[in-house]
Amino acid sequence: MAKELTSRSENYSQWYNDLVVKADLAENSAVRGCMVIKPYGYAIWEKMQAELDRMFKETGHQNAYFPLFIPKSFFSKEASHVEGFAKECAVVTHYRLMNDPNGKGIIVDPDAKLEEELIVRPTSETIIWSTYKNWVQSYRDLPILCNQWANVVRWEMRTRLFLRTTEFLWQEGHTAHATSKEALEETERMVNVYATFAEDYMALPVIKGSKSANERFAGALETYTIEALMQDGKALQSGTSHYLGQNFAKAFDVQFTTKEGKVEYVWGTSWGISTRLMGALIMAHSDDHGLVLPPKLAPFQVVIVPIYKQDEQLTAISEKVTGIVSKLKALGITVKYDNNDNKKPGWKFAEYELKGVPVRIAIGPRDLENGTVEVARRDTLEKQVVSIENIEQFIQQLLIDIQQNIYNKAIEFRKVMTTPVETYEEFKDVLQNKGGFIMAHWDGTSETEQKIKDETKATIRCIPFDQPYEEGFCMYSGKPSKGRVIFALAY
Amino acid sequence: MAKELTSRSENYSQWYNDLVVKADLAENSAVRGCMVIKPYGYAIWEKMQAELDRMFKETGHQNAYFPLFIPKSFFSKEASHVEGFAKECAVVTHYRLMNDPNGKGIIVDPDAKLEEELIVRPTSETIIWSTYKNWVQSYRDLPILCNQWANVVRWEMRTRLFLRTTEFLWQEGHTAHATSKEALEETERMVNVYATFAEDYMALPVIKGSKSANERFAGALETYTIEALMQDGKALQSGTSHYLGQNFAKAFDVQFTTKEGKVEYVWGTSWGISTRLMGALIMAHSDDHGLVLPPKLAPFQVVIVPIYKQDEQLTAISEKVTGIVSKLKALGITVKYDNNDNKKPGWKFAEYELKGVPVRIAIGPRDLENGTVEVARRDTLEKQVVSIENIEQFIQQLLIDIQQNIYNKAIEFRKVMTTPVETYEEFKDVLQNKGGFIMAHWDGTSETEQKIKDETKATIRCIPFDQPYEEGFCMYSGKPSKGRVIFALAY
Repeated sequence: MAKELTSRSENYSQWYNDLVVKADLAENSAVRGCMVIKPYGYAIWEKMQAELDRMFKETGHQNAYFPLFIPKSFFSKEASHVEGFAKECAVVTHYRLMNDPNGKGIIVDPDAKLEEELIVRPTSETIIWSTYKNWVQSYRDLPILCNQWANVVRWEMRTRLFLRTTEFLWQEGHTAHATSKEALEETERMVNVYATFAEDYMALPVIKGSKSANERFAGALETYTIEALMQDGKALQSGTSHYLGQNFAKAFDVQFTTKEGKVEYVWGTSWGISTRLMGALIMAHSDDHGLVLPPKLAPFQVVIVPIYKQDEQLTAISEKVTGIVSKLKALGITVKYDNNDNKKPGWKFAEYELKGVPVRIAIGPRDLENGTVEVARRDTLEKQVVSIENIEQFIQQLLIDIQQNIYNKAIEFRKVMTTPVETYEEFKDVLQNKGGFIMAHWDGTSETEQKIKDETKATIRCIPFDQPYEEGFCMYSGKPSKGRVIFALAY
Repeated sequence: MAKELTSRSENYSQWYNDLVVKADLAENSAVRGCMVIKPYGYAIWEKMQAELDRMFKETGHQNAYFPLFIPKSFFSKEASHVEGFAKECAVVTHYRLMNDPNGKGIIVDPDAKLEEELIVRPTSETIIWSTYKNWVQSYRDLPILCNQWANVVRWEMRTRLFLRTTEFLWQEGHTAHATSKEALEETERMVNVYATFAEDYMALPVIKGSKSANERFAGALETYTIEALMQDGKALQSGTSHYLGQNFAKAFDVQFTTKEGKVEYVWGTSWGISTRLMGALIMAHSDDHGLVLPPKLAPFQVVIVPIYKQDEQLTAISEKVTGIVSKLKALGITVKYDNNDNKKPGWKFAEYELKGVPVRIAIGPRDLENGTVEVARRDTLEKQVVSIENIEQFIQQLLIDIQQNIYNKAIEFRKVMTTPVETYEEFKDVLQNKGGFIMAHWDGTSETEQKIKDETKATIRCIPFDQPYEEGFCMYSGKPSKGRVIFALAY
């Protein structure tokens, strides 16, 4: 096999990078920190987009598009937002190039300096709320329920494909409401949409909860999150939904007249997921052979490989395969028939294992005689010989089983890797020797959280929505606590 | 009616702007030359995207994503490309902001200057061909058939919503081939896809042809185009497909080993359409009442408006409407029931006329008694009373008729507005007093074309693929010509 992966146990981080590159998902570009998303990777992202977009529309949202550039002054308008976002970003200062008068290629035209610099959007609250100001006069104009699929740029110093890149693709929802209650409901609705998507499509179990003040979005009063666990025991924040209160409405003077004729500031939310989810998908399920994709997001769910020596055998196999393909397609199953004669079956088997195709069907002359095929499932690597008759129903059920099995495996792993601890010593021990989610009492203060982070790098991933009431004492300060929160090392 | 439009005869350009803004398609943003695409406008764009994306995939293309930023030096590598594109563009020079030490908000951190400036992509040939270099070794790696949906930026001095904006959305296909013949076939295939899309979905008749050397894409050996005619008699270039020869392969050193073991440069194409098509769609069909949308691209095809005085009447109407809605939906027809009680029916009628909804159904108490509804079609503004029984089949056929009628009207207009001329005097007279497409003999030289442009602003829109052989003499130079080309004033 030409494309050898580093194993997870040897070097998890290297395994991840190898996998992303060798499975043709993405690669680094000539531009520092920016990636090229290759067709196979992009096809997975498109499937994610399609499902999420459908879910957004079913919950009443519409797509729109706002400018890539944001005037620098906009960032100063919301005090905490500027601290969080306006620092490491791409700044456009000029709008023209010219031929170097000294003949050395092209240079920036010094006469084409912008009066006010433009920032390439790291997130769009400011430009969107400055627009909403003109859209809202009365309560009749509310709610506004917009989403945008876009690229954003944050000047990251250390980048990793999908997980942290200078430019990334995402969706950002931005909604405006007449009441705080409605905005909070929306914030919760969207974190639920994200959780449903993660669990039902990505086969990724997530814990829903609130962020502590330290980990909140810059400019939000409340941040809800879904947190997933990767195979190396580190957490990955997979989607966030922010309750913005009236912060951005006040910053951009977005007011409305209520039914009762009073003038009030509008209430806001924003919520987003990004190509980072590709990283979560890859790291949660894949193994040392390559990607393991949940069938619902696989670019193609079934690959069929012919096994033959003579051309006549291929002709007979291909004829049979045509029937199988059309039966599978009729059930909405996506299938690729790889009859490329440049590659041997063994090479193809390895290649499709690497690419995580959920089901592989192999068919040779012996199968033709017996009316069978060999079916291999990617998640367990098990093979079995199956009758061609009703093969489409068998495959349909198998895809359901694989989707479920991948989810079950991930949730079983999370169960094993979730540890309640009572003392800080125990906490540090688990963090260092086991990893995973650690359930511990915390006194609720930012100071304690910050000290724990400084000493161990662990952060509070969330205060779970379903946190059971349990009296205890903060593992760090010994002060009283009413329930456990989730700590982990995180991506 | 609250939203009065300027009429076309009064001021066509103002009519267009009014329409775009008042029909909630788009608006100018706080950033010079950048637009906000509002939900209703974006919904039309999404329908366009969906159909085109399907057509691209059916012709074997895959989507991918390449970086937003391009290193400045890349533009110098293809000599004619730099002249065409690297001039008016957004230049990123810094990657950090900081608090002004004098306390005046935030400023660009002078220490965070990039070693090499980054250009926000005006088009992606350079970054993509620099990537393809790593993807191609042998003929087995070809063809590469990638498309990208993305935003691009060109620093335009005079902008108009959709037609010419600093940032716009588009798709750009970039393909790489082993032979010149294959690349030329691809170039032609994609201009045909664009023409099919324009005619079948946008109801927009287009003329396919080649650009003259003057009007070619910077870096292309051949540019194919589809040209449409707007109601004011001006042409709008609606999509282009470029044969790049080996220009970009040479600039970025993309070579491959042929089947015969020789090393050769790869052959390329690129092709694109943009949100400019929204402008074409609006200008080709709409009237003084507002938008006229072809049913295949309308965000919703049918609107139902209840006519009532008492609440019980609304209840009875709504019950009936529920049945109609589900029958329409079952046929794949998109429908909105507007039972908003804040607005009067007259207001709604005007609003949906403005927004170009192809079919309006009105239903009142009298209709309930008679088992009828009133159906109004947007394209002709005709109304008729129709039986509720089998209404869904009636509407289905009506939508087909409307799509066809809009196309027929546009092609009829083009026929009337296409004028063959023999002399330059005649040419200038038609150009000034009638407009439209002017079919004239031309000597084939760039000099003549440039002189005509300088004197009249008219350009050669294309040399039509179906140009009949006809001997004649250039209207300007008197030199011999073998066929007529299409001149027009253009957007």
